[in-house]
Amino acid sequence: MKIKRGLFLGRFQPYHNGHHAGIRQIFESKEIDELIIAIGSAQESHTLKDPFTAGERIMMITKALEDLKPPIMTYVLPIEDIERNSLYVAHIRSLTPAFEIVYSNNSLVQQLFEERGLIVRPLPFVERAQWDGTKIRKLMVQYDARWHHFVPEAVAKVVNEIHGLERLRRIAQNDK
Amino acid sequence: MKIKRGLFLGRFQPYHNGHHAGIRQIFESKEIDELIIAIGSAQESHTLKDPFTAGERIMMITKALEDLKPPIMTYVLPIEDIERNSLYVAHIRSLTPAFEIVYSNNSLVQQLFEERGLIVRPLPFVERAQWDGTKIRKLMVQYDARWHHFVPEAVAKVVNEIHGLERLRRIAQNDK
Amino acid sequence: MKIKRGLFLGRFQPYHNGHHAGIRQIFESKEIDELIIAIGSAQESHTLKDPFTAGERIMMITKALEDLKPPIMTYVLPIEDIERNSLYVAHIRSLTPAFEIVYSNNSLVQQLFEERGLIVRPLPFVERAQWDGTKIRKLMVQYDARWHHFVPEAVAKVVNEIHGLERLRRIAQNDK
Amino acid sequence: MKIKRGLFLGRFQPYHNGHHAGIRQIFESKEIDELIIAIGSAQESHTLKDPFTAGERIMMITKALEDLKPPIMTYVLPIEDIERNSLYVAHIRSLTPAFEIVYSNNSLVQQLFEERGLIVRPLPFVERAQWDGTKIRKLMVQYDARWHHFVPEAVAKVVNEIHGLERLRRIAQNDK
Amino acid sequence: MKIKRGLFLGRFQPYHNGHHAGIRQIFESKEIDELIIAIGSAQESHTLKDPFTAGERIMMITKALEDLKPPIMTYVLPIEDIERNSLYVAHIRSLTPAFEIVYSNNSLVQQLFEERGLIVRPLPFVERAQWDGTKIRKLMVQYDARWHHFVPEAVAKVVNEIHGLERLRRIAQNDK
Amino acid sequence: MKIKRGLFLGRFQPYHNGHHAGIRQIFESKEIDELIIAIGSAQESHTLKDPFTAGERIMMITKALEDLKPPIMTYVLPIEDIERNSLYVAHIRSLTPAFEIVYSNNSLVQQLFEERGLIVRPLPFVERAQWDGTKIRKLMVQYDARWHHFVPEAVAKVVNEIHGLERLRRIAQNDK
Repeated sequence: MKIKRGLFLGRFQPYHNGHHAGIRQIFESKEIDELIIAIGSAQESHTLKDPFTAGERIMMITKALEDLKPPIMTYVLPIEDIERNSLYVAHIRSLTPAFEIVYSNNSLVQQLFEERGLIVRPLPFVERAQWDGTKIRKLMVQYDARWHHFVPEAVAKVVNEIHGLERLRRIAQNDK
Repeated sequence: MKIKRGLFLGRFQPYHNGHHAGIRQIFESKEIDELIIAIGSAQESHTLKDPFTAGERIMMITKALEDLKPPIMTYVLPIEDIERNSLYVAHIRSLTPAFEIVYSNNSLVQQLFEERGLIVRPLPFVERAQWDGTKIRKLMVQYDARWHHFVPEAVAKVVNEIHGLERLRRIAQNDK
Repeated sequence: MKIKRGLFLGRFQPYHNGHHAGIRQIFESKEIDELIIAIGSAQESHTLKDPFTAGERIMMITKALEDLKPPIMTYVLPIEDIERNSLYVAHIRSLTPAFEIVYSNNSLVQQLFEERGLIVRPLPFVERAQWDGTKIRKLMVQYDARWHHFVPEAVAKVVNEIHGLERLRRIAQNDK
Repeated sequence: MKIKRGLFLGRFQPYHNGHHAGIRQIFESKEIDELIIAIGSAQESHTLKDPFTAGERIMMITKALEDLKPPIMTYVLPIEDIERNSLYVAHIRSLTPAFEIVYSNNSLVQQLFEERGLIVRPLPFVERAQWDGTKIRKLMVQYDARWHHFVPEAVAKVVNEIHGLERLRRIAQNDK
Repeated sequence: MKIKRGLFLGRFQPYHNGHHAGIRQIFESKEIDELIIAIGSAQESHTLKDPFTAGERIMMITKALEDLKPPIMTYVLPIEDIERNSLYVAHIRSLTPAFEIVYSNNSLVQQLFEERGLIVRPLPFVERAQWDGTKIRKLMVQYDARWHHFVPEAVAKVVNEIHGLERLRRIAQNDK
Repeated sequence: MKIKRGLFLGRFQPYHNGHHAGIRQIFESKEIDELIIAIGSAQESHTLKDPFTAGERIMMITKALEDLKPPIMTYVLPIEDIERNSLYVAHIRSLTPAFEIVYSNNSLVQQLFEERGLIVRPLPFVERAQWDGTKIRKLMVQYDARWHHFVPEAVAKVVNEIHGLERLRRIAQNDK
């Protein structure tokens, strides 16, 4: 009996409640036997758009997943960008266990995987307000404590351990 | 209280009983709170020395670890080579959670991490006969079933799922 | 007697009537013995600005050229970008037969080749309305059939064979 | 009616009678509608193993093909190596028109393409003595005129135009 | 007695009176035994923002420094960008003599070096009007001779030797 | 009156008396107005063949040159390798002030620069026994103090400051 795997792609800057709810719904759907969570733009860090390193994002996700008690085997993997769209699918495939289903709402991602014959599912519905990394990073820069409301508690702990708010605020100074 | 993490580096072509015993001993030593298993040369595959893709090796390790019931949080991460030795430590640090201890018997790895101020521990003692990836790959090429004796059962399953022996044998033809 | 070669540089997204008329004029000028058509940004694809792969653009040009019945030997070659302007000329030279004349209206290209001692010719005059890849791609995204008027028939066939309009439309969704 | 394309892969250092005979047989087989000749290791030059630039090899092949009067559309394309075997097939596909059949006797190439579902054909039989680039380069280094016997006349002309023998001999000095 | 080195980072497009005054003040402060002047974005050239090659900028700085009669050993070194912020500090360290102090007013640079434990000093005060490369390049494009007022005489000489104004003006045409 | 510059290329692992004598002779020849000393393979370090970083080699050369009291302006610059021989000359040119003469005994280097029209001079005669980096590194690995006889005193100081012998010896363990 062949194992059926799904791929969930994101930048996770940071991992937030929207991602968390999406993954919970995938688990509940029981559609797949194993889930791969791929951290895109792994090489980026220390910018307003991508403040956290791949290592830091891996910590956020791995720790937050513990609360969900994943019912299936779950892999959390960093994926560096590749400059050529035409190699993107092969690049991801070479760095992850084989998969058949891709969960994504990004139409370029959808196009690239479908051209290579994979199944693409739109992400399970999650309230949009929960799904806005840009807003969360903005709150962080302003030291506005409400950013805590939008991320799992385990993520907040990691952000504090690595002095994430101080880093973000300093980076933000350059853009003024 | 600060979390204490260790890094275990290998190419894992394939993950074998020697790695497995080493990791078990690290768990038993209770020296660290979290373990990072870093898969080196992640970009390599389809050669006699490096037959398996990063994705395949991640599967081997993640599934084999289940038997050990890891008592601490354990990360399994692919690391592509970087051509410059002088960037190696920074490269790994940027892709993994922060760590303080490196487990390795490789003297170049030891030198690089010590020059940057990290603690290096030789790998816990494991009988050398168990620790020879070259020999295992040779058995595989010859379709000699004894390769099963040197890897965890979960690894053997993955090798079969991906038709690993057939791949190795074919690659080997080129070198004659 | 030394062979005199010319270089015609473009991104060809897609190859259109403007390029076609320019190349016909170069053939008619009888200035050169052989023509190299270099497809720039060969690594790009699946974006609004660069929707087609190098392979697809090679097909467009090779097939469209058949109608012109090239009177001289003509090479159609993909050239990946190189990030360093100071290496651009050497990069192209190493991937193509030796040439002496460069046909281009781009002033950076002109500057780079002249600094290295080559002859640069502005492109033969072609009515500007025929020379606007951006407009053609816009029509394609809107499924406006008038895009056919701006490209050779052979190009339209290739675009259809590869489902080019569907790809472009989907990519365009991401930018809304 | 879908176009059926074949891919012929080689390093062509230089293009010789063995390649030439192989391509003639492919033409005669009438199996395909279009042929892609892909020049591998396009980035290499000025070494004993790879003395000629991609541009020079493109000239050799394009000019030698004229004698064969190709009965089908034939593309001659440079392909730079990619360091990751797992991306090799996608890399070639993105730089060439879509193809279904690969002509190759190299078992790694066969393995990589078959893993991605393509058809691989061993190269049509050609007498082995005709098929030895290493031997030809050795004759060139020694200024032994018999190298002419192993390449099409058009290739010999190109080698002379670019002072190929002098280059090879000089590079060879370094290895003593 | 350990040698104390400082690092002064800039793009130097071109090297101007602001840089010059800053370096003079560092010399006068007698805080360090040796100074490293690192030319960032060394790979860039022939753009409006980065018109001069690394080689040209090295000439500007080396010649202008002669007027200051550096009282301590001074290194002038090109540093290519590295795409990953998380590797930036290690990258610079591997290409320069070991240093402890970084002179910079850029908050990202400050953040990156402080995260790795180095001392960062804001640049010695220099009147801001003297410190504006963008303005100087604008004057150059317009052939406005007042650009001479903002750079050391040795720099003006280099710009003339390499026909810098003509290059800038031509590049500027492309952006209209 | 145009400035005449020469280029002296080496890996300088380490900078030794042979290099030193060669440079002294170039100074004495009065053939050029300025000298560029280019440190090749700048990206390499921590191997038996290339133990020292670019930064360390820059220190060795700059400090050793002080004894020669260079009568002409002298630049010491790191040059990373570029994988393509066909780009090598353009690569070096873009990172250094413009030069016309290349001092080298390496026949590949000679070939590459002559193909691009530069003048190549064999290195001034230096007794071969003085010119053997391999032998010096071997002595260092063995902690044989005679390595001091083959390098300028300033170089020996740098090697000690960076604990070079300990590094080399450790790296050497890996190769047993």
